[in-house]
Amino acid sequence: MARARVIITLKKTIMDAQGQTVERALHDLGYSGVQNLRIGKLGDMEVDGAPREQLSSQLDEMCRKLLANPIIEDFRFEIEE
Amino acid sequence: MARARVIITLKKTIMDAQGQTVERALHDLGYSGVQNLRIGKLGDMEVDGAPREQLSSQLDEMCRKLLANPIIEDFRFEIEE
Repeated sequence: MARARVIITLKKTIMDAQGQTVERALHDLGYSGVQNLRIGKLGDMEVDGAPREQLSSQLDEMCRKLLANPIIEDFRFEIEE
Repeated sequence: MARARVIITLKKTIMDAQGQTVERALHDLGYSGVQNLRIGKLGDMEVDGAPREQLSSQLDEMCRKLLANPIIEDFRFEIEE
């Protein structure tokens, strides 16, 4: 069994309204040095049954089909045994 | 200027309904080996003006006050120059 972490972020060219809102809230709280805040998602999971060499193509597929929207989002993943 | 990444995850004892839903959807797509999927959030930002040694206490404060809900969520952050 392997553990995997998928990290999904908005592409740099896409406006991040959620990030801007959180950044403004941080400024209002006095943290005026915070800039270019971007919000992303992550998924931690255990993956059973896939041979090690197929795991990364399987994760790539899962991201493209369901977890991420490749039109507006970038994704990457880390695998640990 | 430093870059920081804040990672926020639900505490292990808290049920993750979103993670369960995504896990079920992956099973329906044929990825039956996926287990214990948990969804988290992340924030990437640039932080200006804070002396290096105050940065990590400032990020800790930002997480406690706004970014995370310490009652149900764990957080950690990484700082790179």
